[in-house]
Amino acid sequence: MDDEQFLAELVAFIRPPDEAAMAAARRRQGNLTKPPGSLGRLEELAVWLAGLTGELTPATAPRSVIVMAGDHGVTAEGVSAYPSEVTSQMVVNFLGGGAAINVLSRQAKAKVVIVDIGVAADLGNLPGLLVRKVGAGTANLVVGPAMSREQALQAVQVGIEVANSEIDAGARLLATGEMGIGNTTPASAVICALTGAPPEQVVGRGTGLDDAGLARKREVVARALSVNRYLLADPIGVLAAVGGFEIAGLVGVILAGAARRRPVVIDGFIAGAAALVACKIAPAAQPYLLAGHLSAEAGHRIALEAMKLRPLLDLGLRLGEGTGAVLAFHLIDAAAGIMAEMATFDEAGVSGALESDAATKA
Amino acid sequence: MDDEQFLAELVAFIRPPDEAAMAAARRRQGNLTKPPGSLGRLEELAVWLAGLTGELTPATAPRSVIVMAGDHGVTAEGVSAYPSEVTSQMVVNFLGGGAAINVLSRQAKAKVVIVDIGVAADLGNLPGLLVRKVGAGTANLVVGPAMSREQALQAVQVGIEVANSEIDAGARLLATGEMGIGNTTPASAVICALTGAPPEQVVGRGTGLDDAGLARKREVVARALSVNRYLLADPIGVLAAVGGFEIAGLVGVILAGAARRRPVVIDGFIAGAAALVACKIAPAAQPYLLAGHLSAEAGHRIALEAMKLRPLLDLGLRLGEGTGAVLAFHLIDAAAGIMAEMATFDEAGVSGALESDAATKA
Repeated sequence: MDDEQFLAELVAFIRPPDEAAMAAARRRQGNLTKPPGSLGRLEELAVWLAGLTGELTPATAPRSVIVMAGDHGVTAEGVSAYPSEVTSQMVVNFLGGGAAINVLSRQAKAKVVIVDIGVAADLGNLPGLLVRKVGAGTANLVVGPAMSREQALQAVQVGIEVANSEIDAGARLLATGEMGIGNTTPASAVICALTGAPPEQVVGRGTGLDDAGLARKREVVARALSVNRYLLADPIGVLAAVGGFEIAGLVGVILAGAARRRPVVIDGFIAGAAALVACKIAPAAQPYLLAGHLSAEAGHRIALEAMKLRPLLDLGLRLGEGTGAVLAFHLIDAAAGIMAEMATFDEAGVSGALESDAATKA
Repeated sequence: MDDEQFLAELVAFIRPPDEAAMAAARRRQGNLTKPPGSLGRLEELAVWLAGLTGELTPATAPRSVIVMAGDHGVTAEGVSAYPSEVTSQMVVNFLGGGAAINVLSRQAKAKVVIVDIGVAADLGNLPGLLVRKVGAGTANLVVGPAMSREQALQAVQVGIEVANSEIDAGARLLATGEMGIGNTTPASAVICALTGAPPEQVVGRGTGLDDAGLARKREVVARALSVNRYLLADPIGVLAAVGGFEIAGLVGVILAGAARRRPVVIDGFIAGAAALVACKIAPAAQPYLLAGHLSAEAGHRIALEAMKLRPLLDLGLRLGEGTGAVLAFHLIDAAAGIMAEMATFDEAGVSGALESDAATKA
């Protein structure tokens, strides 16, 4: 079976949420010792978890954040505040446990899975690194496609395999993470191509461009969309022409999570681009996604709105790596814990609400 | 020493944040392996923690949520969707570990301290309950003052003592919690009195009033402010005339936390009213406060804006008990962990940002 056919079969396998489980979850929420609805989004999260897993009190551990790392030919255009070699240096930092995603994952009890899906440097076989390299960095997308369609499908396949491996090992939740100097440029181009929003609205400062750098980056994205315009007819075409290896890998993670009925928490701007591709390939994947946070990167809101996803946190984060997704695990635990551990009115002997009449007369 | 004088001396003891520690924290944030500012509010929280504690990497555990419980004479006016007896029933639920605050505190590794500061029922000596009753529920504030000035000061004193006891036992962070059927009515009146905002903007549906109940509650708050108008000249006067025992207790918790240099995470609407009183008594306490979340209760935003506090979470919560404050502990841990555990650029051998010129030329 070729990669296109495999992907189509995986997509066909994605099931809608379990309405009966969601109804049961709503009923239980109404019996817990609190005014109905008073836990706001925690209640919604509990109902969502039930719908995806089919269980009233699903486990939320173990869980994994899958960090896909890749390089980008477009860095030759001066679109990042940092040099390309930082991608491989940060992979080493991840493996050493010293990056933000390591710290936050230790606190959230999440396993960090680091995948070299397209780093330019040859990192060799470093302990803990999954080497699944599709290429040594993408080509420069202002000149032509970032990668071939075959490479894009291969990178999606890597994401599917890594996610399946985590799920096989027990993962109940997945989070998306990434590292790739320059990757807000392809992510911007993907979001523009799939939403129709113009580069001026989508392209932001990334890791910290000044005004001149921002103007240059907008111009680069506009040129990339123009140069590759005949390749943007379908989501895989967009991914290949103006995407990146790590973005494609995360598309695979999302699709595999949805197919295996595991909630997938997406992180920021790059993950937003990957999620858009995944939802275009498979609209049925959308209910499996939770937007962990709203990134400070300007165009993130546009991507989330296009998917009708409401972010959980809004902390001005713009680091990537999966940091905002892993923080959201704490709130998912809270939602699941409320459902599993809170007493009902009957159990606790607590009186329910007054009838409206009674309140009026009291 | 009388209670007024004791309070004045405590207030005089509150110190401003340590600017040198904050500067050192900002410098360290700039050396960690991430683009400057890319962790948004987590970086701000780390600087805030350093300023309050004087330590670059302060401990954030152990920590306690202090849940003050009290009843309200104003429930006779039909201002709550639940009957008064739910206050004492929920205290029993707290002691049994079955309420939302118990679940979330277990997850956040916070100690739950339950204080009967003014429950109407005689609960006796239940295991785990701190009985520090100032009165058996307040008087009805539409008829006259909810309590005497002496009672208000006594309730503040209870809060100070309970907070000091937690701090003496090692607490590094405090959170405010409360339980009291009807207490959004006195909280609304306090917020109106101290901000000048009209009842129509401040009074909300609480635990779930219908339209008729909401109109009645607005009228009750307006009458309470009018009946007690000669008593509202100073913050303690406001607290006594239109507050509640648990609100007064939380004023004491906040002031003691500030005096002992412990960050105090405030929860929702009721805590917002208590914090307003505390900041009016002692403006120097404001920097010690973190607004854990924005409540779904309409007037919370008005209270937070009056204190120039920006909420950390926005999850549509309106339960109280301390739930939104305890959720914020996870993010405080994240901020502290980033500061304590992340590698610097030098340690990790990661290249810094390009000069703007280099990016331009690249």
